[in-house]
Amino acid sequence: MENADRIGEERLARQLEFVLELDKLKYIKRQTYVADGSRRENDSEHSWHLALMAMLLSEYANEPVDVLHVMKMVLLHDAVEIDAGDTYAYDVEGNATKRQREEKAADRIFRILPEDQAKEQRELWEEFEAGQTPEARFANALDRIQPILLNDITGGKSWRERGIAASQVLERNADTHLGSETLWEYVKSLVEKNQQKGNLK
Amino acid sequence: MENADRIGEERLARQLEFVLELDKLKYIKRQTYVADGSRRENDSEHSWHLALMAMLLSEYANEPVDVLHVMKMVLLHDAVEIDAGDTYAYDVEGNATKRQREEKAADRIFRILPEDQAKEQRELWEEFEAGQTPEARFANALDRIQPILLNDITGGKSWRERGIAASQVLERNADTHLGSETLWEYVKSLVEKNQQKGNLK
Repeated sequence: MENADRIGEERLARQLEFVLELDKLKYIKRQTYVADGSRRENDSEHSWHLALMAMLLSEYANEPVDVLHVMKMVLLHDAVEIDAGDTYAYDVEGNATKRQREEKAADRIFRILPEDQAKEQRELWEEFEAGQTPEARFANALDRIQPILLNDITGGKSWRERGIAASQVLERNADTHLGSETLWEYVKSLVEKNQQKGNLK
Repeated sequence: MENADRIGEERLARQLEFVLELDKLKYIKRQTYVADGSRRENDSEHSWHLALMAMLLSEYANEPVDVLHVMKMVLLHDAVEIDAGDTYAYDVEGNATKRQREEKAADRIFRILPEDQAKEQRELWEEFEAGQTPEARFANALDRIQPILLNDITGGKSWRERGIAASQVLERNADTHLGSETLWEYVKSLVEKNQQKGNLK
């Protein structure tokens, strides 16, 4: 019984250590601005926004999706950035080393958890990265669409700062339609509108 | 067909308007500090943290819970604060008018959504507020526990600023054990430790 208590206590201690370690996602800034344009959003805010979108927009997924599974994936899809940092979508050099940096980060971060949960979270992250299941395709689509919505409402603030071209956004979103044709059609029209306005080159 | 297209477009337009309206939760500051103590956390960060906890800690709920249902509840439990503001847990005057201000806010905010989703989100919020289902009891427990974890790791930063007493934290958490005896036992020990350290009066 005492032994079981100790094992139980260690399990909870590791889970809470992880919960507090993940607090660091609140300090990792993305390139995208929040909707009023006053500052950049951080990874935890972005992840919350994706979970909200998963809850409200799953009817537009091309294939039926398990919403809980999508939510789990998006809540922690950026956890590796605690060690690896945010790599801007249009940073060519950064993206060349991204996978290696993120794998090392995943090795450290998910292993804070008890073994069963570490395995589950690592698998969710790998699934998201691979993008080969209906849930991962939809989660990746949301992850690509959310910054376009925020760029559109801020007059293309982060696009203009970096001189991004419409062709770069379209290339970055080559697979977004695989998650949701409907959402991609809508978002593509926003890209075109922003190009006409000069917010995208 | 054209009519159906228009209805479909209106539905998506309302959903995306809501997604962008909810971005305002990123600007609503709570009293609690993030784990490194550098600044206060905001409602979207707090909601993300609760969803993460729901995912990782549901094994400690007193009764079996539907994790997706808990997540849906915590993701939007603070949506009403967009209009009603954050009412500090220990603000007696603010709490006297809180319910009325929040009901008015719920009337406006959830109605941005298509009718079926407005109804679902309103019901989730009412369920959370009432705290009478296993999911709502667990969600409320997480909502009470998360700021204690952050206060503990920041040396009681927001407690000390406001001169909060251990008795106030215990009173505020009178129902936390109804959601999770195990988590409450752990968190109660943190309250006692912080009282001994002088972080709580």
